[in-house]
Amino acid sequence: MTIYNFSAGPATMPQPVIQQIKDDLPSYKNSGMSVMEISHRSSLFDGIIADAEQDLRDLMNIPDNYKVLFFQGGGTLQFTAAPLNLATKYHRIGLLDSGHWADRAGDEASRVGVKVDVLDSTKDIKYTELPVLKDLKQDTYDYVHITTNNTIEGTAYSKIPDTGATELVGDQSSNFLAQQYKVEDFGAIMAGAQKNLGIAGLTIVIVRDDLIGKVKNLPSMVDYELFAKKNSMFNTPPVFAIYAAGLVLKWLKEQGGVPEMERRNLKKSGLLYDYLDNSKLFTAPVKKADRSLTNIPFITGDPDVDADLISKATAAGLLNIKGHRSVGGMRASLYNAMPYEGAQALVDFLEKYEADYWRTH
Amino acid sequence: MTIYNFSAGPATMPQPVIQQIKDDLPSYKNSGMSVMEISHRSSLFDGIIADAEQDLRDLMNIPDNYKVLFFQGGGTLQFTAAPLNLATKYHRIGLLDSGHWADRAGDEASRVGVKVDVLDSTKDIKYTELPVLKDLKQDTYDYVHITTNNTIEGTAYSKIPDTGATELVGDQSSNFLAQQYKVEDFGAIMAGAQKNLGIAGLTIVIVRDDLIGKVKNLPSMVDYELFAKKNSMFNTPPVFAIYAAGLVLKWLKEQGGVPEMERRNLKKSGLLYDYLDNSKLFTAPVKKADRSLTNIPFITGDPDVDADLISKATAAGLLNIKGHRSVGGMRASLYNAMPYEGAQALVDFLEKYEADYWRTH
Repeated sequence: MTIYNFSAGPATMPQPVIQQIKDDLPSYKNSGMSVMEISHRSSLFDGIIADAEQDLRDLMNIPDNYKVLFFQGGGTLQFTAAPLNLATKYHRIGLLDSGHWADRAGDEASRVGVKVDVLDSTKDIKYTELPVLKDLKQDTYDYVHITTNNTIEGTAYSKIPDTGATELVGDQSSNFLAQQYKVEDFGAIMAGAQKNLGIAGLTIVIVRDDLIGKVKNLPSMVDYELFAKKNSMFNTPPVFAIYAAGLVLKWLKEQGGVPEMERRNLKKSGLLYDYLDNSKLFTAPVKKADRSLTNIPFITGDPDVDADLISKATAAGLLNIKGHRSVGGMRASLYNAMPYEGAQALVDFLEKYEADYWRTH
Repeated sequence: MTIYNFSAGPATMPQPVIQQIKDDLPSYKNSGMSVMEISHRSSLFDGIIADAEQDLRDLMNIPDNYKVLFFQGGGTLQFTAAPLNLATKYHRIGLLDSGHWADRAGDEASRVGVKVDVLDSTKDIKYTELPVLKDLKQDTYDYVHITTNNTIEGTAYSKIPDTGATELVGDQSSNFLAQQYKVEDFGAIMAGAQKNLGIAGLTIVIVRDDLIGKVKNLPSMVDYELFAKKNSMFNTPPVFAIYAAGLVLKWLKEQGGVPEMERRNLKKSGLLYDYLDNSKLFTAPVKKADRSLTNIPFITGDPDVDADLISKATAAGLLNIKGHRSVGGMRASLYNAMPYEGAQALVDFLEKYEADYWRTH
């Protein structure tokens, strides 16, 4: 049986990458050591991390005045690190409250003493559309934080809000490299790796170099200036996760880069949205203009039907389509590594399930 | 050619573990997914993390009133986390300055506003013996921080300093599970995984439960109480690193546990120390009573000879014996996964090198 894994993260990875990782065991490049065992100060690893950075720069057209940093601790540690490093003038940030992860970012900023103003929120409509930035007061906020793609709620900014002279910080965790953004629109970008870039335990930060070094004596593991200076190797970095990310980045380049990924993701998600919008059983609750390409929640409105569907989908090899507990229903995550055939198999399954359903209801 | 990897970390892993990781690709337990792709909320991962915790509890005889937490960020993030969580009454800690990593721990504590008193230091003798705790003033420090094994300098506490009613926090990163300590002697233990427990990107914290929860609103990624409450899954944990650690823990149990590891490590390190102490070319600079079982620095006193030796050792498959830049010379790390044959091969090589050396000098 062919398995398709629709998990929101950790998530499906490109099969050639998994195969390469297997092939590289137990001896990486005939070194007699696996990547898990090589020193981060070795020439073998120098090549891995340098390639990963360069490939990411190529894929995202990252300008030279932006640093690429490799952190641990997930998006959550960056919700602490970003305000500590960047909210140094006004000690105040603006937040577009687009869902769970935006709210979490605001919460962590508050914990380190930074004031957080919610500029707009769509919480009252269960985050089924995106908050909108209107009349941003300049010279007030060190930055505005947005979540470019909301993993749980299934919304995404296809057009980035214009913050004028105020910096924009984007949490791109769940659509990183999956749709096209201009790095120059952001002062900083953060992204956990476990959705579109490999395995959990690695977080990428891309930050414009004039924004860092404004504050001294930060805890080292959240210090952007220190990580930039030490090439992300102040202490032992997550060697294996960086290696896996490097393989995913090479795969992305071979496939045609981010424009091709966006094209495929539009096609995959379009297939599913089209079906859902024409279905009498299922609803995709998110406003059309704000829909995510990578995370697609859908519901029947009947928890018993949802549970039956999820159970049958699992038995059919369509794994992890259970929705987040805060939204309920189902969610299909269609990241870069999900092939079109996976989206097709899911739609085929849903069509058949719906037909069976209407025969008995 | 048989390769032996003497790297101080990331370090050699048990070959059966590497083989198991390879065998588990691309499909873990016939799930159709690799461990890198499974959700941390899945029953597959529940089994992995629960087993890892239980096996660690069994191996270290961890009492029930101690929590086992899985963090990211290495020892360095714990140098921030420990004072934030534990230095809540006096905001002052005592430090036994035994080397680079002890100094780093003190530095990070200072960065979060905790006073650090160096209770003893052996910096003036290049850390070739351990600092000693004398006349500790009670009711002064939230805890005393020690580094049980000093990776760079090659010293280790075989007997834990008695801090009386003052708590002891131990950084066991480089001899974790490699020699026997009583968990009850510590209020908290921290250990990076990349030496004796698998791959970089995972840090274990073992902390007595009455010590946590004394302070609210910490950044989540350093909050011991939150991690305890959320079973280390407040956000996505480093799934693959926890899986690899779990395999290492199972291997350790099969081998006979920590007492057997300590016996083997005494035998391996004894072989090398005996040779070095009888050599006319090499010196092991550390005081005998304070020597590490896992990290063994040695020097010739002539950087050209050191460089020649390291180059020839590398060509002979004895990898990563270059000493840390702060000590110079050579260092052999003989962690649990290094077989006796590795230590023997190194001694054989050094004997032959020395014999050749005296023929020409």
